[in-house]
Amino acid sequence: MKPYILISNDDGYQAPGIRYLIETLKPLARLIVVAPDGPRSGYACKITTKEPFTLQPISEEDGVNVYACSGSPVDCVKLAFNILLPRLGIRPQLVVSGINHGDNSSVNSFYSGTMGVVTEGTFQGVASIGFSLCDMSAHADFSACGKYIESIVRKVLAEGLPPFTCLNVNFPRTDGKYGCSMDCNPATEAHPETGKAAAKDYKGIRVCRMARSTWVKEVVECNRPGSGSPYYWLTGEVKELEPEATDTDRWALYHGYVAVTPQTLDTTAYGLLKDWKI
Amino acid sequence: MKPYILISNDDGYQAPGIRYLIETLKPLARLIVVAPDGPRSGYACKITTKEPFTLQPISEEDGVNVYACSGSPVDCVKLAFNILLPRLGIRPQLVVSGINHGDNSSVNSFYSGTMGVVTEGTFQGVASIGFSLCDMSAHADFSACGKYIESIVRKVLAEGLPPFTCLNVNFPRTDGKYGCSMDCNPATEAHPETGKAAAKDYKGIRVCRMARSTWVKEVVECNRPGSGSPYYWLTGEVKELEPEATDTDRWALYHGYVAVTPQTLDTTAYGLLKDWKI
Repeated sequence: MKPYILISNDDGYQAPGIRYLIETLKPLARLIVVAPDGPRSGYACKITTKEPFTLQPISEEDGVNVYACSGSPVDCVKLAFNILLPRLGIRPQLVVSGINHGDNSSVNSFYSGTMGVVTEGTFQGVASIGFSLCDMSAHADFSACGKYIESIVRKVLAEGLPPFTCLNVNFPRTDGKYGCSMDCNPATEAHPETGKAAAKDYKGIRVCRMARSTWVKEVVECNRPGSGSPYYWLTGEVKELEPEATDTDRWALYHGYVAVTPQTLDTTAYGLLKDWKI
Repeated sequence: MKPYILISNDDGYQAPGIRYLIETLKPLARLIVVAPDGPRSGYACKITTKEPFTLQPISEEDGVNVYACSGSPVDCVKLAFNILLPRLGIRPQLVVSGINHGDNSSVNSFYSGTMGVVTEGTFQGVASIGFSLCDMSAHADFSACGKYIESIVRKVLAEGLPPFTCLNVNFPRTDGKYGCSMDCNPATEAHPETGKAAAKDYKGIRVCRMARSTWVKEVVECNRPGSGSPYYWLTGEVKELEPEATDTDRWALYHGYVAVTPQTLDTTAYGLLKDWKI
């Protein structure tokens, strides 16, 4: 029998990225989809504690059951593991999140609802992988991602991952513009040129560490017409803190490689732990 | 001149925990408070990308300026560093978050808005510390925390922290009930016996690693009266995955010690990075 995979994301169950992921994984596994009922970009590991949330069956096509949850990406995974999957008698072998519309390399991983799903899947004791494409457009071209997703998922299905570790996989854009997209800037969501570009193949896979970078120019002040009272929008651009390094996820993305970053959920700073005395 | 410290939290600017923190730090530094305008527990590193947010000056007392932000804990820090602090000509030497009403040890750190503030402060290049007390009650007794906060903050003001690292400090309860509280269960927010208990001193400080634990029984299904359609509340209890370990934050909390866990924001799993080939 084929294994079960739980699929979720942060762009919502209707996003093209999760649709592409479902089609890609159908031949490999039996799929259960529990995803947010709308966009939840930038939700990180948010959990819903002050109000309840709901779960809605959406569709069952080709044996793939899709459910929409009104909570956060992490809520989706908790609801799946605590209620839905036990009722169905299913223990998935893998949790897969994405494909995110926008990159989650470097520090973006911390803000990412896509990686929130992966973090929670790992806490539930199941090997978990997040996939993200460096293109926030609704018309992003995912077609070059499929064969890499298949080979990475097959390997993790066969070998598993150590406890408290997961994979963060980022794909460059396929139109030759390999730069990292702005993950939180509503003004840049549409790349009109993307979707028209032919999908080139990537140069290969790099297993790489997380680059150190920081966001700058992150907040823009606006004034409410007529009142003069200010309000604020998040925006920004990435400043690379180690642009010379060639062993990072950012180097891979800028150079046309698929970036696979193994991540740990034991965030103890062991070096500092040894040295810090009080 | 005294250094500047930026203070925030996830319980909102009116919470007793942040009030206690302000009073504790007043003798050590000049303080700027930018905190959420209401509770944001469980917000993790959420950023607000789909709508704008606001900043409201609340009060200026004893030279402490307090601002309330309608966004997430991380939004507060981004707004402070990008707009407010540059306008005031201030570069803080430290970001301090808390005191959270509820513990952020072990995996709770991932869901925590308190630690979201700390993560963002670290990304802004400033040494950052989160303080949390194992008691979710609004009447939690913080009085034993002060002298430890003072010594930890003094040390970090003097020595700094390495880049991409921060401190996660958790205090046990002071009424002898050293167990870890449920961080996401609205039903357990009130501990009627707390606040009446005399504040005992802690046994000391342990610099310790993050324990591995997991949440179980995390979701409860309820039915809307009259409709029968279900909705879900997060709840749960912690299952310790290494109850025998004596070098963890959880051991410290269960045994009456202040737990100081140095955390890294480079979450690359370096062991797996070395071994994982594709």
